[in-house]
Amino acid sequence: MKFFAEIDIMPQKEILDPQGKAVKLGLHNLNMDTIDNVRIGKHIRLEVDAASEEDARTTIDAACRQLLANLIMEEYSFTLKAA
Amino acid sequence: MKFFAEIDIMPQKEILDPQGKAVKLGLHNLNMDTIDNVRIGKHIRLEVDAASEEDARTTIDAACRQLLANLIMEEYSFTLKAA
Repeated sequence: MKFFAEIDIMPQKEILDPQGKAVKLGLHNLNMDTIDNVRIGKHIRLEVDAASEEDARTTIDAACRQLLANLIMEEYSFTLKAA
Repeated sequence: MKFFAEIDIMPQKEILDPQGKAVKLGLHNLNMDTIDNVRIGKHIRLEVDAASEEDARTTIDAACRQLLANLIMEEYSFTLKAA
């Protein structure tokens, strides 16, 4: 069975995000000063072949922990959808 | 009124994604070879102050078009949630 995963990897709340700060300034320079607290991370889309949603979830979780996210500075979350 | 926006910016379907390909190889080297079609983009979280959800949507849309996404190579989508 095939599943689509959508993974968000974001800097942890306690960590400064200079990229987000720069983008916020850029938006304010474009007169969009109602925008605040910009934080920038990664979004990953992938497909996984698994016997069950439970299995797919285990695989994605391992992928995030072992390669995709740096858990010292980042946190991850994901959603799964059957294809 | 405050709204939280979650924006995904991804390379367009027609565009090669070498970063995604490299990550797929990395995952296969870690024996997660049930994973395929990895694509990597950006995820942006921000807050916007607006009179209505409609207004907030217009602001985010303008931000994506003018600064956050490069529409030649990327596409964007977002969800809004009232704070």
